[in-house]
Amino acid sequence: MTRPVLVDTTTSSHARLRPVPLDAVTLHDGFWAARLRQNREVILPSQFPILEETGRLDNFRRAAGRVAKPFQGYYYNDSDVYKWLEGAIWALATGDNPELAQQVETVVGLIVDAQAPDGYLNTYYTFERADQRWSNLRDKHELYCAGHLIQAAAAHKRVTGSDRLLDVARRFADLICETFGPERPGTSGHPEIEMALVELARVTGDARYLEQAAYFVAARGHDVIGGRAYHVDHAPFREMTRLTGHAVRAVYLCAGVADLVAETGDAGLQETLERLWDQMAAYQVYVTGGIGARHSGEAFGADYELPNARAYAETCAGIALVMWAWRMLALTGDAVYADMLERALYNAALPGISLDGFSYFYDNAFQDDGSRRRRSWYSCACCPTNIVRLLATAPAYLYATSETAIWVHGYAAGEVRLALPSVGAATLTQHTRYPWDGEVTLMVAGEGAFEVRLRIPGWCTGDAALEVNGAPWPGDLTPGTYVTLQRVWQPGDRIDLQLPMPVVAVAAHPYVLEDTGRVALMRGPLVYALEGVDHPGVDLRDVAVAQETFEATHAPDLLGGVTVLHGTGVVVPPAAAWSDRLYRPATPEPAPTGRPVDILAIPYYAWANRAPGQLQVWIKRPGP
Amino acid sequence: MTRPVLVDTTTSSHARLRPVPLDAVTLHDGFWAARLRQNREVILPSQFPILEETGRLDNFRRAAGRVAKPFQGYYYNDSDVYKWLEGAIWALATGDNPELAQQVETVVGLIVDAQAPDGYLNTYYTFERADQRWSNLRDKHELYCAGHLIQAAAAHKRVTGSDRLLDVARRFADLICETFGPERPGTSGHPEIEMALVELARVTGDARYLEQAAYFVAARGHDVIGGRAYHVDHAPFREMTRLTGHAVRAVYLCAGVADLVAETGDAGLQETLERLWDQMAAYQVYVTGGIGARHSGEAFGADYELPNARAYAETCAGIALVMWAWRMLALTGDAVYADMLERALYNAALPGISLDGFSYFYDNAFQDDGSRRRRSWYSCACCPTNIVRLLATAPAYLYATSETAIWVHGYAAGEVRLALPSVGAATLTQHTRYPWDGEVTLMVAGEGAFEVRLRIPGWCTGDAALEVNGAPWPGDLTPGTYVTLQRVWQPGDRIDLQLPMPVVAVAAHPYVLEDTGRVALMRGPLVYALEGVDHPGVDLRDVAVAQETFEATHAPDLLGGVTVLHGTGVVVPPAAAWSDRLYRPATPEPAPTGRPVDILAIPYYAWANRAPGQLQVWIKRPGP
Repeated sequence: MTRPVLVDTTTSSHARLRPVPLDAVTLHDGFWAARLRQNREVILPSQFPILEETGRLDNFRRAAGRVAKPFQGYYYNDSDVYKWLEGAIWALATGDNPELAQQVETVVGLIVDAQAPDGYLNTYYTFERADQRWSNLRDKHELYCAGHLIQAAAAHKRVTGSDRLLDVARRFADLICETFGPERPGTSGHPEIEMALVELARVTGDARYLEQAAYFVAARGHDVIGGRAYHVDHAPFREMTRLTGHAVRAVYLCAGVADLVAETGDAGLQETLERLWDQMAAYQVYVTGGIGARHSGEAFGADYELPNARAYAETCAGIALVMWAWRMLALTGDAVYADMLERALYNAALPGISLDGFSYFYDNAFQDDGSRRRRSWYSCACCPTNIVRLLATAPAYLYATSETAIWVHGYAAGEVRLALPSVGAATLTQHTRYPWDGEVTLMVAGEGAFEVRLRIPGWCTGDAALEVNGAPWPGDLTPGTYVTLQRVWQPGDRIDLQLPMPVVAVAAHPYVLEDTGRVALMRGPLVYALEGVDHPGVDLRDVAVAQETFEATHAPDLLGGVTVLHGTGVVVPPAAAWSDRLYRPATPEPAPTGRPVDILAIPYYAWANRAPGQLQVWIKRPGP
Repeated sequence: MTRPVLVDTTTSSHARLRPVPLDAVTLHDGFWAARLRQNREVILPSQFPILEETGRLDNFRRAAGRVAKPFQGYYYNDSDVYKWLEGAIWALATGDNPELAQQVETVVGLIVDAQAPDGYLNTYYTFERADQRWSNLRDKHELYCAGHLIQAAAAHKRVTGSDRLLDVARRFADLICETFGPERPGTSGHPEIEMALVELARVTGDARYLEQAAYFVAARGHDVIGGRAYHVDHAPFREMTRLTGHAVRAVYLCAGVADLVAETGDAGLQETLERLWDQMAAYQVYVTGGIGARHSGEAFGADYELPNARAYAETCAGIALVMWAWRMLALTGDAVYADMLERALYNAALPGISLDGFSYFYDNAFQDDGSRRRRSWYSCACCPTNIVRLLATAPAYLYATSETAIWVHGYAAGEVRLALPSVGAATLTQHTRYPWDGEVTLMVAGEGAFEVRLRIPGWCTGDAALEVNGAPWPGDLTPGTYVTLQRVWQPGDRIDLQLPMPVVAVAAHPYVLEDTGRVALMRGPLVYALEGVDHPGVDLRDVAVAQETFEATHAPDLLGGVTVLHGTGVVVPPAAAWSDRLYRPATPEPAPTGRPVDILAIPYYAWANRAPGQLQVWIKRPGP
């Protein structure tokens, strides 16, 4: 029997953790339950007509010979259809929507009909372009689109049990395996197929796809597709020392390599992944978990190159980081990856969609004059169709298992029912208002002795508290680790975890020039921001914050219900001597004086959902 | 009789200032004399074989039917030939080089032979592409190349008196005038032809070219070439409120419009130019005079978007700013334009070439890890061939005249001999070591009563001093103005100007995030920088400067002879708590302690001429 498993490391020899099927998790009312529902009932159904209107579906009908229109849009537009489809399939694994289910059927039918007799499937390379197949692997996204098809097909099989789409994907994958290899070198200018082929190997049990994924990784950096960093082809993967080039390409590749390592245990690849991760975490990531700072090439910048107004931080790159982090976590069980996953999920991916579900940010700024707004669609629609995949699969990131343990990575009200490999059935129910507060009560029951491993988030300041059935737990609660509770759990067993959420003003490394003399406000996993609409008459660039004074208050009617931070600051406009001048002799800076101002900070993900206005994430510190 | 005049406002009704021919200026040994000589004897001759090797000259032979090769290089490569040619022609106006003169003859001959019978001339659009002429004005630089041809031809006429190249330019310009107008709308995606056509009108006396230039300006912003800011086509010029899009395009356009205004007196255009200038100066220019902060699109960024390591500040944009500033100065006589011209000349244009004259920076950073080096050439060679034009014409920017005045804009040892329109002959000789010190002695003689107007640079701190024949001059010496000395000058009359050059630490506007808590060192017109090679074992990012302590010393054997700044600072590495961390809770910053370090600053233009190492222009300030 298939189960709706996102990244199926269930039998991966070299993964420490096993996934929990989506249908094993039930979310109760709360942060993620609302978003799952909105995704299934509003967002996904709203994207379907856009796929239709923009010709993306007609491209499939055209390939099937059913319409006689020219190909419409970008050569990679098939991928948006596949991503939407994958998102819809996962969404239907956690709830019903007959309209959406019908749309899924329609799209699956279009894909089936569009496949060429030899298994090839890319609607751009049909008819007049059929003879150009595989002629430009570097730029034309054929293998990338194939990867998204395969991922959607794996989801379809696991959620519905049907082989209909999987057969399509498999025939195409077989053609790819027959086509590319040492005799005819090739690899994709945009990684994605690596993750997909490993998943196809998992869902079919056919190791050939795994070998093909390994080949595609090994082919990089050997002048097969031009040798540019933009395509993550500037060096063999094993020799890479830092992430560079196009951020989504680079991190999709890392995620695919992590999938490979889970199957093969390739120590050299794992070492490379860990090296790249460490470099990224130390030098290249925004406080939000956003990556790819540079507009030019949508790329990783130099170390410490993290501009604010000019940030790129593509939504897709934030989502890619969630994917990579999840796979590293599965490999290692190291909480450092869960910390980054949570950071990127709430603060780098989620800002990509409006609260009403109808508009999207492609790139994400951390300071703005109010001119940036989410848009209802993009001609390059990678981000909107990636967000629906992410939202649909959010419950998959909450839990994992190992032989004798349930791992609780994330906190969200709801229930998980599962079977531990060496133990038996277990049930865990979370009661929490997370991320709005850090009080979590977990009710545990199951068969035999097993462990509950609870994540103590890295953002904790060190005063977390834990009780089991009312008795303080004496063990180590170091932030950035998992605490392990082992016992024979009885119905009624209760764990109380307190993760205090003071407001923390964080500073950035002194080499991050744009953040000099500034702080960002965080509370729990959330990065906060100031918005103009809450500070009428104030230029947010002039606000200096007094960090000690913040108070968190839940505002149920604001922005869909958020906890806001109230505090005081001072408004210190530039001295009159700066009027219309960019440079002048430096004078000793007097201590700032200025009028007091009430500061209200909202979660960064929720910005730009009200009247347009300024945005400021990094706020001036008090003092000279 | 023709005279070698760069921008000929001699009879322009609406220009306040008249140009001084290049051959009226003799530079004595010093900063610019050495560079003129090097340009004529080393740089220009060294570029000629590159033009040959890269196929740029063969493209002309091909167009003439003399070789049967395919077109080589970029579609705009003709412009490099024209720019080199213009530079060589100007260079020969101030000194001899028979080899260079022969190269000029060769290139002129190639151009003459390459022209089509109908006057068209662009070697990319010949033979198989002949039917695509004018098919893509937005992207393909046909009018841009034409503009550079025309500028070279005007120079050729003025320097040699020959009509040979001018006839070519005129025939092509006539074709352009016949082709484009209200009936067949068109304008160039890359401005340049506007300046050229005005100059052609000046050199030929034919107002038709002026009208065509006005047409090309008026056609912008009306959806003729796509409406993008990148092409400065997002709005009608008169409605533009700030510079945006590709910096060189935008500023070439402004320079061309200023040329138009000099002839037509169009008040609306002048007002627009002044508005755009003021916005640029207040929000968009580096302390060096570099413009176009953004790599994406080589473009102007948002207000205060002035990153350091990630600066673009294209050398060509710095040169373009010199061109625009010169024309604004000619229009108005306002010293604000001379200040920017000088700033950009020394600090934004000059860094574009190595001291040995063999390598070039295309874009210019203000912080670097040592990996950036000048290159011997670029496939897009706009900057190298622009630098030779600029160096060859540097004496043109030193002086101007009005009816009864000699204007001294720049200080450089040498002599100028000229005739004032309403007065008669005048001679002025400068003795100075400028820019290394601000002591200037001027010997003046002439016929009748006339004025000498001396620029008091805006960088002066206010304690300039002036004597005439040993007697203190009682008038106003406000920095950023011209002081006017009127008398009947007798042989032996002497002016002594003292422009003290203390080391000034300048700060940037608080909204320039990357410069927060930092200063740049300036002395006189020069911006200084720290280089790794002078600070072994020190990470320049950790150096905080104590601004009071700098001492200027001339080092004749260093970097071709430069005045360096010596001072002390402290090295304050990031606290140990930052090890491998990008973010952590903010703690009150202690006053920096660290080991003292001797600081040596060199002129920014001279960086990257020794062993590779770090660069730091904006240096940390002392204090918390």
